[in-house]
Amino acid sequence: MKRHVYVLNGPNLNLLGKREPHLYGYTTLAEIEQSCRELAARLNFDLFFGQSNYEGKLIDWVHEAREKDAAMVMNPAGLSFFSVPLLDSLKTLAEPVIEVHITNIHRRDPLYQQSIVSEHVSTGVICGLGPFGYEAALLALADIYKMRHESAGRP
Amino acid sequence: MKRHVYVLNGPNLNLLGKREPHLYGYTTLAEIEQSCRELAARLNFDLFFGQSNYEGKLIDWVHEAREKDAAMVMNPAGLSFFSVPLLDSLKTLAEPVIEVHITNIHRRDPLYQQSIVSEHVSTGVICGLGPFGYEAALLALADIYKMRHESAGRP
Amino acid sequence: MKRHVYVLNGPNLNLLGKREPHLYGYTTLAEIEQSCRELAARLNFDLFFGQSNYEGKLIDWVHEAREKDAAMVMNPAGLSFFSVPLLDSLKTLAEPVIEVHITNIHRRDPLYQQSIVSEHVSTGVICGLGPFGYEAALLALADIYKMRHESAGRP
Amino acid sequence: MKRHVYVLNGPNLNLLGKREPHLYGYTTLAEIEQSCRELAARLNFDLFFGQSNYEGKLIDWVHEAREKDAAMVMNPAGLSFFSVPLLDSLKTLAEPVIEVHITNIHRRDPLYQQSIVSEHVSTGVICGLGPFGYEAALLALADIYKMRHESAGRP
Amino acid sequence: MKRHVYVLNGPNLNLLGKREPHLYGYTTLAEIEQSCRELAARLNFDLFFGQSNYEGKLIDWVHEAREKDAAMVMNPAGLSFFSVPLLDSLKTLAEPVIEVHITNIHRRDPLYQQSIVSEHVSTGVICGLGPFGYEAALLALADIYKMRHESAGRP
Amino acid sequence: MKRHVYVLNGPNLNLLGKREPHLYGYTTLAEIEQSCRELAARLNFDLFFGQSNYEGKLIDWVHEAREKDAAMVMNPAGLSFFSVPLLDSLKTLAEPVIEVHITNIHRRDPLYQQSIVSEHVSTGVICGLGPFGYEAALLALADIYKMRHESAGRP
Amino acid sequence: MKRHVYVLNGPNLNLLGKREPHLYGYTTLAEIEQSCRELAARLNFDLFFGQSNYEGKLIDWVHEAREKDAAMVMNPAGLSFFSVPLLDSLKTLAEPVIEVHITNIHRRDPLYQQSIVSEHVSTGVICGLGPFGYEAALLALADIYKMRHESAGRP
Amino acid sequence: MKRHVYVLNGPNLNLLGKREPHLYGYTTLAEIEQSCRELAARLNFDLFFGQSNYEGKLIDWVHEAREKDAAMVMNPAGLSFFSVPLLDSLKTLAEPVIEVHITNIHRRDPLYQQSIVSEHVSTGVICGLGPFGYEAALLALADIYKMRHESAGRP
Amino acid sequence: MKRHVYVLNGPNLNLLGKREPHLYGYTTLAEIEQSCRELAARLNFDLFFGQSNYEGKLIDWVHEAREKDAAMVMNPAGLSFFSVPLLDSLKTLAEPVIEVHITNIHRRDPLYQQSIVSEHVSTGVICGLGPFGYEAALLALADIYKMRHESAGRP
Amino acid sequence: MKRHVYVLNGPNLNLLGKREPHLYGYTTLAEIEQSCRELAARLNFDLFFGQSNYEGKLIDWVHEAREKDAAMVMNPAGLSFFSVPLLDSLKTLAEPVIEVHITNIHRRDPLYQQSIVSEHVSTGVICGLGPFGYEAALLALADIYKMRHESAGRP
Amino acid sequence: MKRHVYVLNGPNLNLLGKREPHLYGYTTLAEIEQSCRELAARLNFDLFFGQSNYEGKLIDWVHEAREKDAAMVMNPAGLSFFSVPLLDSLKTLAEPVIEVHITNIHRRDPLYQQSIVSEHVSTGVICGLGPFGYEAALLALADIYKMRHESAGRP
Amino acid sequence: MKRHVYVLNGPNLNLLGKREPHLYGYTTLAEIEQSCRELAARLNFDLFFGQSNYEGKLIDWVHEAREKDAAMVMNPAGLSFFSVPLLDSLKTLAEPVIEVHITNIHRRDPLYQQSIVSEHVSTGVICGLGPFGYEAALLALADIYKMRHESAGRP
Repeated sequence: MKRHVYVLNGPNLNLLGKREPHLYGYTTLAEIEQSCRELAARLNFDLFFGQSNYEGKLIDWVHEAREKDAAMVMNPAGLSFFSVPLLDSLKTLAEPVIEVHITNIHRRDPLYQQSIVSEHVSTGVICGLGPFGYEAALLALADIYKMRHESAGRP
Repeated sequence: MKRHVYVLNGPNLNLLGKREPHLYGYTTLAEIEQSCRELAARLNFDLFFGQSNYEGKLIDWVHEAREKDAAMVMNPAGLSFFSVPLLDSLKTLAEPVIEVHITNIHRRDPLYQQSIVSEHVSTGVICGLGPFGYEAALLALADIYKMRHESAGRP
Repeated sequence: MKRHVYVLNGPNLNLLGKREPHLYGYTTLAEIEQSCRELAARLNFDLFFGQSNYEGKLIDWVHEAREKDAAMVMNPAGLSFFSVPLLDSLKTLAEPVIEVHITNIHRRDPLYQQSIVSEHVSTGVICGLGPFGYEAALLALADIYKMRHESAGRP
Repeated sequence: MKRHVYVLNGPNLNLLGKREPHLYGYTTLAEIEQSCRELAARLNFDLFFGQSNYEGKLIDWVHEAREKDAAMVMNPAGLSFFSVPLLDSLKTLAEPVIEVHITNIHRRDPLYQQSIVSEHVSTGVICGLGPFGYEAALLALADIYKMRHESAGRP
Repeated sequence: MKRHVYVLNGPNLNLLGKREPHLYGYTTLAEIEQSCRELAARLNFDLFFGQSNYEGKLIDWVHEAREKDAAMVMNPAGLSFFSVPLLDSLKTLAEPVIEVHITNIHRRDPLYQQSIVSEHVSTGVICGLGPFGYEAALLALADIYKMRHESAGRP
Repeated sequence: MKRHVYVLNGPNLNLLGKREPHLYGYTTLAEIEQSCRELAARLNFDLFFGQSNYEGKLIDWVHEAREKDAAMVMNPAGLSFFSVPLLDSLKTLAEPVIEVHITNIHRRDPLYQQSIVSEHVSTGVICGLGPFGYEAALLALADIYKMRHESAGRP
Repeated sequence: MKRHVYVLNGPNLNLLGKREPHLYGYTTLAEIEQSCRELAARLNFDLFFGQSNYEGKLIDWVHEAREKDAAMVMNPAGLSFFSVPLLDSLKTLAEPVIEVHITNIHRRDPLYQQSIVSEHVSTGVICGLGPFGYEAALLALADIYKMRHESAGRP
Repeated sequence: MKRHVYVLNGPNLNLLGKREPHLYGYTTLAEIEQSCRELAARLNFDLFFGQSNYEGKLIDWVHEAREKDAAMVMNPAGLSFFSVPLLDSLKTLAEPVIEVHITNIHRRDPLYQQSIVSEHVSTGVICGLGPFGYEAALLALADIYKMRHESAGRP
Repeated sequence: MKRHVYVLNGPNLNLLGKREPHLYGYTTLAEIEQSCRELAARLNFDLFFGQSNYEGKLIDWVHEAREKDAAMVMNPAGLSFFSVPLLDSLKTLAEPVIEVHITNIHRRDPLYQQSIVSEHVSTGVICGLGPFGYEAALLALADIYKMRHESAGRP
Repeated sequence: MKRHVYVLNGPNLNLLGKREPHLYGYTTLAEIEQSCRELAARLNFDLFFGQSNYEGKLIDWVHEAREKDAAMVMNPAGLSFFSVPLLDSLKTLAEPVIEVHITNIHRRDPLYQQSIVSEHVSTGVICGLGPFGYEAALLALADIYKMRHESAGRP
Repeated sequence: MKRHVYVLNGPNLNLLGKREPHLYGYTTLAEIEQSCRELAARLNFDLFFGQSNYEGKLIDWVHEAREKDAAMVMNPAGLSFFSVPLLDSLKTLAEPVIEVHITNIHRRDPLYQQSIVSEHVSTGVICGLGPFGYEAALLALADIYKMRHESAGRP
Repeated sequence: MKRHVYVLNGPNLNLLGKREPHLYGYTTLAEIEQSCRELAARLNFDLFFGQSNYEGKLIDWVHEAREKDAAMVMNPAGLSFFSVPLLDSLKTLAEPVIEVHITNIHRRDPLYQQSIVSEHVSTGVICGLGPFGYEAALLALADIYKMRHESAGRP
């Protein structure tokens, strides 16, 4: 049976590839979705890919993911810093959460440096690798599931 | 004439009794609603009970409560800490606001310790009493109205 | 066999109902003791009710409570904020501690906002409900013991 | 061709003129919209005027404004302080952003003093001038466009 | 009878239009004075316009303004941040104080972000609108006096 | 030979008795000077009494006082908090410095709570005693000189 | 009828004149009591003079003072900085509280710089004047009562 | 002649060996007193050993120790962090003060990390060595006295 | 021609797989080196792999990498937080720096949360993915070089 | 079989007895080593004693100690405050770590007050006892091993 | 043509050589002016040397220096820390600014450690070299002009 | 006899003139050494000039300098900010320490602004003067020795 993976994108990411390309690059969110779908197929993941500007909508999707025991790839964007509700929803997940940021948030303005999602819930965090970060996240999930399988017998 | 009371529940509380029962207990939100309705009937309150993952929806309900001169029992959950818009809506209420948290938030991670709702708007705050906190809040409202009635004649 | 409950009151609470009634109300500590005794009788608690201006005396009483496996309702008043000795004594208790404040301390001067008792030891905290807070605390203890009884068989 | 101008109003501003008139005055949002429309007509602006309690809705409107190369007059209200998503959406605009607050936020509670919108994105900020602030913002946009026109030829 | 309005300018503003034009623009203080005089004539204000590099001189002028019940348009420049004496003098005024900054100080170095004048005394604050800010301030004073006149009869 | 005593008053104190009498009282600076002169005569002090809105002028007077080995009674007013130059001048004095504030500055806004003069240079500080503070300061100087005289022979 | 005045001294002040005379001088507490009694007689005050190392004892005395509508001269010594209970008792007094410290606490270690009594309750504060501070406090009380008498008829 | 040594124990230490043995061990205060007495006999010290829950009582004992020129072994327990009165009393001692904590306080909650006694008065500090800490303290005193004796003749 | 890649490992990483396997896993550094070498061969990178407990040695290697225009995969371990010298050496590199941490440092003790390398120099950061993080870093470098190649022609 | 004990000394301790003897005393490191060797022989410990100015060297020695299941007596000197690498190496030890400082670091400059070793890893800490601290540390290790032996059978 | 150099001295520097010689040395400002004039002659600079206790006067001189394209040697003394007006005037200079302090301000009280002039405007800073600092500053200006001349041809 | 002077250079300074020339200029460390040697010869100093990337090596050299009573010119580079061991070694020197930084560190990132060497040990600090700073440091040492010679006879 295929594992479920949710790839969720926070506010303003629908503009990716359109706004400030010198900073965020030329790849659009549709192109990222496309490469995620291809890689997910190869890794045998059942993929959901969504974006919303509404915190409430993202939380609804996280609850859905929870119902399906899905793993999570989350780019919380501007909700990384003060959205305790989104954070709380992520805490209810049993499977791994990989957090992705397009840019290296640690080198940006202090307002953008401290992700509370990283601090409280993420299994792993990838930032500054551009759109490739999404692929790395899916590969990491595959690695985690492989490790879990292998170490099942370890004392 | 009956007094209106709004019992509002913030993000993720729809999962109550399902997530982390060692922390939040086994009582579901539906069960809490049920015991609130029974107690409200006994105390002669006209009860509205709602939950939403959308900050905007909660604000709309607070505006509704304002129209009806309703008292408020509010569990703001993850919106307790940085939601100035929800706080601002609660400030427009003329009747008492009792804030309820299932757990003792003061003993949790610093991120969860400082409710701006407690600091700026709540008449009273109850935390750490589990689902009983909702009942205590309704009883407290009844007590406040009784006191107000009694002290009406005091100089 | 009856359960023991200690209701302890910190410094200056002997003046309740006498000082700043616009802030603390007109109910005296003797009246609060009276309604606590009536409610305790109804809930089948063996009640001790005390007040002292001496930190050392309050600690002695907490040690006594510890000997009797008593539950605690504590209004630490001005000792809430810097009295590590009182806090340490409360930590030695095995039974629940319900902290009560007459006013909503979170809306007062910063000096009065951060109770170290809430942060380190209280099972639950009730503030801003006036003298009713003591009754709510006793009801909460009854609820906790009922829950404990019911969940004894849960896995 | 007319320039587009968006006038956006954050959470709770639908209550303007109804809540706390001693603080916010007696003018309603509808009256403000009316005087904005009249002034916009005189200044030859194509005006959009909106209010929402949902952060997500406001972001959608900002994205719309971006499509039309519109200038922005923004009263972010309670979202001024922690809404990084709204801030991020405003950063994608190429035209000027004038931030308006009815009251002088610098003289209010510390929670309300530091607008991250002012810090990161506003061209200009007007606060404490009451409803007149909206008119001043539209006049300022007209001034900016006049200056830009005049300085076009400067080296 | 005409109302008195003082427009005061703090240290270094005599260099306006001469230093860093990419930041402060090409308009000189003399040109600003000229357009203020024209607008004041139209609004029927009796205008005093001054600039000094001496804190003491500015305080003397504020005391003068106090004697005449004048309204104040103040660009405190470098004295915005630590000059408690200037702040104290402004506090003695009974009429409105509109604070003006040429640039959006909130987007500058932290040293320049927190005007104590805004925090403690200004009726309204305008920043980032360039020289037009002075005109907006005079218009705002006219609006305030009109509002005051209209609301005179309101209960 | 008479001892010299300088009584210096910082910015805005020329308005004493005129601004905010509910806060600063009805006594003018001229009346304070008068009672200081009478008391100084009785205590056999040669008194200089001055006020200026210019930091530089006050420093010049402090240098003068230094030349005459004068004791100092200083009300630095708004210069108490950030004027390092005035502080530095006071440090050059060999005789006692008594700092006087009309109000209890510790109970005012944080901006006004921390006098660097108190922290770094004052022999004694008197605040909140109104105009009587000046008399107390002169009496204290007399007491200090008496003590010094008496303890001259102590080992 | 004579006015009551309480002069209370906190922990360790019984050692005055014995410990660290280079810092606190050679005058003992008994000598201070003596000169206070003489001055009180002259000013027609009914004086109580006490010292205790127990916070609780000092609070009891403050409650006594409250019963008698006494004015207070308080040297809280080491209780100045963290004793909220003592502070709370002082807040219940209706008459003036003059706080006295032998040394200038602002020039000592940071631990000793911020008296919460000064910040929250004192009418006036005198520090750094040595034992003379007690006399100045009694004189200040006399001055306050004289002013109150004189201003009784002022509008 | 024997040297005097006071071993003083702060609040709640009477419960040692009874509360939280996984943290504080199984040794009671009586057993510690016993081994201190044996070691003191061997080192030729005249030992006083006391415990109190009253800050005032501990200060009285410190004053007693001062009279006898005693060295001090102090476990201030919960009074380590905010008791300035106890700290002040210890400062009056001329002989060494060795501070002892049963556990390594630096690894506990931040509230328990910063002993003001260590910062301001202790000659040496021993923590985390359990009941052995008391013995080490007595041995250290012996070492100090030996060193003092030996270095008496050094230039 | 092959590109040079340096994989450097800071202090204590020689113990990987040996210390705290529940935290860091069972994979040794030798095994990580092995899988890095295999992947590097596939990606056509010329790999250097080193570990040292000496800051100075790591800096020497970074200087070497600079000479060869090598890309960097750096796990600075305990040097992430305060080693400005290592940070400075990394700043001299022209090619990308990918920072790797075995665990999610953001969820650890505050001491370990803020990598100055992330803040000042890293192109991308990967943490919490265990040994797979190294592979992800090499893949990311390959992606960066591919992107650079592709975008070479973009305007 | 003998237990291994490592006594390690950080940077500059080779100068002990030579630099600032008024602060650090006249005992040299060689003399300390000598008395440690004698006491270790008596306690049946196999002692390693080392000093280095290189952080890397000290870490190598800690790794060695780890191989031998040695206990540690560590004077980290200047590495106490920011050396996360040394701290991390100490965390890998299974046996007790006793931290020793010659002086009472809590009474020194703030830069020297907060040892991260104390906060994160030490079993016990001894400071301010001079060279005797090393002996106390060895005695404490002996006590710990004796306790461990005795409590082996306790439930 | 000679280059202009302004050497400006802030408040209280007229007392140099007279106050606290153990700290500031015995050299007077007149002697410093003399040696500056001699060195300036040798370096072919046209020197202006001034001192004032008025911030406004110093700003006027800086404006003068700006007119003449002068380089600046500035000892801001007590204005180094909070005088934003002086700082702003220095920012308008196009030529280098060398800041001089007689003592090493970094080793003084925290109030004196952070020069905002150093942080925002100085080309170079020299402190702690006593009166020689002025000579070093003039030599450094000569060096800068030589370097500028030499590097004129560099690409 | 010649005086010894050590010129020591911290990590990464071997790259001087090679990395970021727009920031650090084109002069190499070898060229600086050359001009230092020439000037030292003229000033009759016996010069040691060294650079190391190892903190431990630099400390060894400082110990060497201590043996020879050498003066120190130190550019600690990246070790300026957190290296307490290097700082401690410099504290053992009896002769002057002149700290040199190529750039004005106060105008760089906050991480680089606060040199603990400046704060705790330097006689003088020179920054922002480029390579000329080394020459100025040697000249300053010569000046200090001259002053010391001259003031030898002063009381």
